Amino acid sequence: MSSAPPAAYAPTGRTVPTRSRERAAYDRDVVHAILDEGYVCHLGFVRDGAPVVLPTLYARHGERLYVHGSTGSRPLRGAREDAGLAVCLTVTHVDGLVLARSAFHHSINYRSVVVHGTAHQVTDPGERAVALDAIVEQAVPGRAADSRRADAKELAATAVIRLDLLEVSAKIRTGGPNDEPEDIALPYWTGVVPVARRYGTPVPADDLDPSIPLPGYLSRPLGK
Amino acid sequence: MSSAPPAAYAPTGRTVPTRSRERAAYDRDVVHAILDEGYVCHLGFVRDGAPVVLPTLYARHGERLYVHGSTGSRPLRGAREDAGLAVCLTVTHVDGLVLARSAFHHSINYRSVVVHGTAHQVTDPGERAVALDAIVEQAVPGRAADSRRADAKELAATAVIRLDLLEVSAKIRTGGPNDEPEDIALPYWTGVVPVARRYGTPVPADDLDPSIPLPGYLSRPLGK
Repeated sequence: MSSAPPAAYAPTGRTVPTRSRERAAYDRDVVHAILDEGYVCHLGFVRDGAPVVLPTLYARHGERLYVHGSTGSRPLRGAREDAGLAVCLTVTHVDGLVLARSAFHHSINYRSVVVHGTAHQVTDPGERAVALDAIVEQAVPGRAADSRRADAKELAATAVIRLDLLEVSAKIRTGGPNDEPEDIALPYWTGVVPVARRYGTPVPADDLDPSIPLPGYLSRPLGK
Repeated sequence: MSSAPPAAYAPTGRTVPTRSRERAAYDRDVVHAILDEGYVCHLGFVRDGAPVVLPTLYARHGERLYVHGSTGSRPLRGAREDAGLAVCLTVTHVDGLVLARSAFHHSINYRSVVVHGTAHQVTDPGERAVALDAIVEQAVPGRAADSRRADAKELAATAVIRLDLLEVSAKIRTGGPNDEPEDIALPYWTGVVPVARRYGTPVPADDLDPSIPLPGYLSRPLGK
């Protein structure tokens, strides 16, 4: 699959840089839209000089991202230091498989956001409450108010870190294959296979009181 | 959302470590199955002391992973050094949203594999050909033989790196919510919303010769 320079990503063909220091105003909506469509990111940090990449839940709240986890987990502990923890937080949506006539021009339609920065632990109780609600709401809007909020013991076991949206880039590939002109006559099927996330019918827990109906926020299709 | 130790991942609740040095034989199939179901990974490396996480295509070939990209891209250049490039390659599948009665026990059903190691550039022409075919086949089995393979110029522009499956862990969360006994009577709906990847009907390129039919490997549903 192709990866023509100047793409920063290895294999994803043509890319559209959508945010730079010069174009922050225009691009903010693009970045927010990509972030808001997801809830699982890949969080990178450095441990003993080596990279570590872990899947984790996140939420966007304004120009800030929140990630939470056990107070004992490595990145959460690292963020507790005064200097914070250098991280890279990446969110990717795959939208299609791009099948060109040439193997080289095979690609993926995708949208991604890469955030670089220093993560800091959130200690203010008010901000922690906002962040924890936001993380529940990110995946299932409407759910935070329809569940029992964390008690003191649970709060004590939960670390929250924040990462401001300062150094952010979005990359998007859309459209069909980009074959070389001399390949157009080759006898291979060419086009795009769309890819999307699908939500199934909610499955009640075995011990759910059958008199409790499916809430409205789950009756509509999730993810728009 | 909960993250009880000893989970290595921040927010994903109970996890099942499925590979360790002691249990490699049992776990190899689990690791392979998770890797084989995907084709986009998140590749982490260290640049100027800071972490970088980029989405990229990969393929598994036996006990080895391949990633490719432009010869000019940062991780591919880094892997060219004799010492190779320290990387962390992570593949994650999201299978469900787990809605507990308490916010704390909200979670995600998922399967993930994390591979740590040193990536090296592949220079042997035969192995490079195998790797490039494998990357096309990873997303669309059957496609490599039904496309024009890379010519000398394209091969010269493409770097391939390999990462052996030596230091690998898989984590899996399945099942329903794990609420506290004292929360069972709370009046909140609880259960799991299934999540899966969906492939749409293939969309032919505008310039596709209409006499070329959809190939058999695209007539069946992708991704099983």
